[in-house]
Amino acid sequence: MDAQRYPRLSRIAVPADLRQFPEAELPAIADELRAYLVETVSQVGGHFGAGLGVIELTVALHYLYDTPVDRLVWDVGHQCYPHKILTGRRDTIHTVKKKDGVAPFPKREESEFDTFGVGHSSTSISAALGMAVALQRQGDDRRVIAVIGDGAMTAGMAYEALNHAGGMDPEPNLLVILNDNRMSISENVGGLTKMLGRLMSSRTMNAVREGGKKLLGDKKNNPTARFVRRWEEHWKGMLVPSTLFEEMGFHYSGPIDGHDVPALVSALKTLKGLKGPQLLHVITTKGKGFELAEGDQIEYHAVSPFDPSIGIVKKAGPAKPTYTQVFGDWLCDMAATDSKLMGITPAMREGSGLVRFSKEFPLQYFDTAIAEQHAVTLAAGMACEGAKPVVAIYSSFLQRAYDQMIHDVALQNLDVLFAVDRGGVVGPDGATHAGSFDLSFVRCIPNMVVMAPADENECRQMLSTGYRYAGPATVRYPRGSGPGVAVQANLDTLPIGKAELRLRGGKLALLAFGALVPAAETVAAEAGYTCVNMRFIKPLDRALILDLAKTHAGFVTLEDNVILGGAGSGVAELLAAEGIVLPVLHLGLPDAYQEHASREALLAEAGLDADGIRAAIAQRWPNLDSATPAKTAAG
Amino acid sequence: MDAQRYPRLSRIAVPADLRQFPEAELPAIADELRAYLVETVSQVGGHFGAGLGVIELTVALHYLYDTPVDRLVWDVGHQCYPHKILTGRRDTIHTVKKKDGVAPFPKREESEFDTFGVGHSSTSISAALGMAVALQRQGDDRRVIAVIGDGAMTAGMAYEALNHAGGMDPEPNLLVILNDNRMSISENVGGLTKMLGRLMSSRTMNAVREGGKKLLGDKKNNPTARFVRRWEEHWKGMLVPSTLFEEMGFHYSGPIDGHDVPALVSALKTLKGLKGPQLLHVITTKGKGFELAEGDQIEYHAVSPFDPSIGIVKKAGPAKPTYTQVFGDWLCDMAATDSKLMGITPAMREGSGLVRFSKEFPLQYFDTAIAEQHAVTLAAGMACEGAKPVVAIYSSFLQRAYDQMIHDVALQNLDVLFAVDRGGVVGPDGATHAGSFDLSFVRCIPNMVVMAPADENECRQMLSTGYRYAGPATVRYPRGSGPGVAVQANLDTLPIGKAELRLRGGKLALLAFGALVPAAETVAAEAGYTCVNMRFIKPLDRALILDLAKTHAGFVTLEDNVILGGAGSGVAELLAAEGIVLPVLHLGLPDAYQEHASREALLAEAGLDADGIRAAIAQRWPNLDSATPAKTAAG
Repeated sequence: MDAQRYPRLSRIAVPADLRQFPEAELPAIADELRAYLVETVSQVGGHFGAGLGVIELTVALHYLYDTPVDRLVWDVGHQCYPHKILTGRRDTIHTVKKKDGVAPFPKREESEFDTFGVGHSSTSISAALGMAVALQRQGDDRRVIAVIGDGAMTAGMAYEALNHAGGMDPEPNLLVILNDNRMSISENVGGLTKMLGRLMSSRTMNAVREGGKKLLGDKKNNPTARFVRRWEEHWKGMLVPSTLFEEMGFHYSGPIDGHDVPALVSALKTLKGLKGPQLLHVITTKGKGFELAEGDQIEYHAVSPFDPSIGIVKKAGPAKPTYTQVFGDWLCDMAATDSKLMGITPAMREGSGLVRFSKEFPLQYFDTAIAEQHAVTLAAGMACEGAKPVVAIYSSFLQRAYDQMIHDVALQNLDVLFAVDRGGVVGPDGATHAGSFDLSFVRCIPNMVVMAPADENECRQMLSTGYRYAGPATVRYPRGSGPGVAVQANLDTLPIGKAELRLRGGKLALLAFGALVPAAETVAAEAGYTCVNMRFIKPLDRALILDLAKTHAGFVTLEDNVILGGAGSGVAELLAAEGIVLPVLHLGLPDAYQEHASREALLAEAGLDADGIRAAIAQRWPNLDSATPAKTAAG
Repeated sequence: MDAQRYPRLSRIAVPADLRQFPEAELPAIADELRAYLVETVSQVGGHFGAGLGVIELTVALHYLYDTPVDRLVWDVGHQCYPHKILTGRRDTIHTVKKKDGVAPFPKREESEFDTFGVGHSSTSISAALGMAVALQRQGDDRRVIAVIGDGAMTAGMAYEALNHAGGMDPEPNLLVILNDNRMSISENVGGLTKMLGRLMSSRTMNAVREGGKKLLGDKKNNPTARFVRRWEEHWKGMLVPSTLFEEMGFHYSGPIDGHDVPALVSALKTLKGLKGPQLLHVITTKGKGFELAEGDQIEYHAVSPFDPSIGIVKKAGPAKPTYTQVFGDWLCDMAATDSKLMGITPAMREGSGLVRFSKEFPLQYFDTAIAEQHAVTLAAGMACEGAKPVVAIYSSFLQRAYDQMIHDVALQNLDVLFAVDRGGVVGPDGATHAGSFDLSFVRCIPNMVVMAPADENECRQMLSTGYRYAGPATVRYPRGSGPGVAVQANLDTLPIGKAELRLRGGKLALLAFGALVPAAETVAAEAGYTCVNMRFIKPLDRALILDLAKTHAGFVTLEDNVILGGAGSGVAELLAAEGIVLPVLHLGLPDAYQEHASREALLAEAGLDADGIRAAIAQRWPNLDSATPAKTAAG
């Protein structure tokens, strides 16, 4: 690190170093940290705006609390880069998201300062409460702080945690910092957002209240303080609008300016002396201090490398569309033909490809905030009244709505289409975002039709198919772009449960699901094997499978899902149910969490590229010529 | 129906009949409905207290709203019996929970008055909002009402729905009735409960407010009304404590007495004329009007048949303990040896067997309210600080915490034990409560150890095993009692991943999981087959399976989980991974939702009793003597 450009930050390897500086230098340290974050992320890419918004807060927290002895829990983790820089990863932060590099989210294995691994939203209060209670029961008085955004606060589990913490006896010692920047990845929505806005505007109330607090001071037990407290209790109910947080049993303070280091330091010093569940409301600006990011907070949420003097330059020209774009276009095209279509996203308008739809069909567009459970049951309710809901959701976040998928949608056989993005290997975002389990956990749900496209055009066809199908259906497609097949403009459907025979060959039949079809086809073409694009995980193409079992020495199933309970196991179950005994080789993702790396690297690591497939077949069938087709079990 | 005992109710088959009565007779109708509910449920058993608490509300709603044209959505459904009696099921309600009888929860297939199927908690606002929005977009002005308890309001998805509804533009026309009886199945807990208590006690405030409302009346658009509204807006913020619901964007009215029919009728008449999201706060008493039930609301939540003149008589004598009791005793015994043990329940203290633990270890006991997501991540946080959390949860409700199990616990390899009750076939509560999917959706999670006991003593051993294992583990046991094996007092563990060979025989090996071990053993003993109590769904006993594959002509896997992705598929995956080709017959639950009936009937229906197992084997292997052991794939 350049000690001339970063005279202070270059001397801070860990928070203990930070604590050697006088308080007066903290703003300058924050400035250096911000400059270093801009320099690094503009070079290597990564999450950007959220980190810029918590520079001052991060400095103040590590300065005042004895991390890692005190426990600091970040929610979601988009904002953790400044924290990582101050906690031992200053000189490696440029490897973020790369294979073997720094993880893009807090990760327990990576650092003792990362107290709780995260990636999904809204877990921090629950986790911090668990820590606080466990420590309290052990008589350990180290402090626990959760930092949660107003976006994350819209999720039910944050509310569940507030409700539990606020009603607990004995009271847990827990500080929740609400980092209120009015944003999720896009603008935050919902009643809570409006409420926070009202809070911010009630400055008079707060001035009155702060006056009351100053009267009270730190002296908790003298008669004056007791009188003031009693009076305050009375007067709060009478004059000051209570907040959600106070109603839940938290002591609320704020709002304060989250970019004002002295204000932060002062507030945190006071809060360190208080027991019980505390909530500090901090107002920040996403992208703070980097003008372009402040001006376009959505664009600068996460970035590819860019020149900070110019900003992000959007690439022109017809690149291959991503599956997300294919979905977004399909949604608009289908909505143009059917006013009953309702598009639902749990706060992922940009990521799920709903920007154009939200503009063109505002009355059919629903951003539920970060609320996967509600999003799915909302869709179920809509379907009850004849609407045609499409829930756009990432595979990994669908895990949050699993019960709603089973209990509210599929059990009632309601006509809801799940457009599941980021299925399979996701890559640089790491294990928290992996879409590796969906085929296993969705396939076992009765009534559900499950599809995975081999290419972009098929993705569109499957979306139309699921939409027209009068029951629950899931189309699961991968992150990024596919093989680059041209997408037709029509809204044609595919026959339910019919696979596509790509190559008719001999010896082995390669039964490939979704993203693995191209690699399977490559290998099959070389070796003269049969290759099938299975299309449907459920229902399987029974007739074709039985036919192929008669004429091949073995099946190879291929999928970008864990092998355990995956699509390949479905094929084996079908053979077993039919009494057919045939060698089957299941290729898929390992029974493990894959670390962050590129999609290609992770697929290769799992042996799911053409080389890996060839090698696995050669290992299983060294003497293919002597192998024989299936026989029946009862033989 | 006896027209002398029920002069009015006998004339009400459907709500249209109810609406023929003058308003003044509604209290008398409520009295008859209550008497009939007591008569029926005391004879046949079922959910009791919740229904008694909403008698007046049910009458008022069906009287004032044009059901089923207007949409009435009940949350959870414990309280739906009076609704069912008034909506065409008066004369069949005595068949509730019985095979082919009335379902214990609202069910779309059963009646057009049951607008949304339910069983799990806290879905009603989401579903009703979906309906309201879908109707609004179609220009249909029928009304939508959700009735939700204060217990159900503690769950995150209710909050997610409030947040969405309250912030929506255009405003949805939706009435949420908060049925506040201070109870879940046991006492409700958390900050929300305290807040509702404060609301109830702020009578002065409400008196002032009601005065304001009377001024306003129904005249919405005259200048006086507009002035009063503006003044009210101002004055509300200044004088009246706002509520969570108002902060979320709902118009709040109440609290009113939910047993006062005229008050209910008056409030609902007013609300019918209002647009936008409305919340009516109704105070009720669970068990109302049946003194014994009011006095012991937990005991009378759900009942077996009893004499209403005497009340529930607790059976004495040493009956076979249920698995729930085995768990509860184990938890107390283990806690007595380890102060780090923390027992967590999402509002199921009684159902999960935690009553004694909660009394003996109050500082280690955590009722999170109906908050499965939070409960699991709370446990993860505790485990980070060296505590030893045990999450007691029903299989079907674990679906609500699936992401937390993957993302917060297993991904971080944290030491959390999941004690999963009601796994497999659950029975009379019906499809919503089925624990049919857990082996499939838990097995595919990396790092997770998964066990299912064959008997009560093994359940205790497995709990000790999972507790001592330094990572995530799941013990999944069925509803009710097992074969009646004596439970030893020790806390011994089992070797991880080792099965128990029960019978060494020939030809076939029956690999049985959990509750199906006894039936499998019966069949194996008769026929001279091998029988294994598999114990571990994950990791499987690889050595034993490979050994048996060499010496048997086929495997039969048996489990009370869906076949799709279940434990048997795990066995098949292992064989496939080893290149072993062997006939396998998977016996398990069908790919369908099983309706309510007794556990025994449902198991028999699925062919999972001894008769069914025999028949399935005979069908698959009509000529067993000619079958041969396994060969390798490369043959």
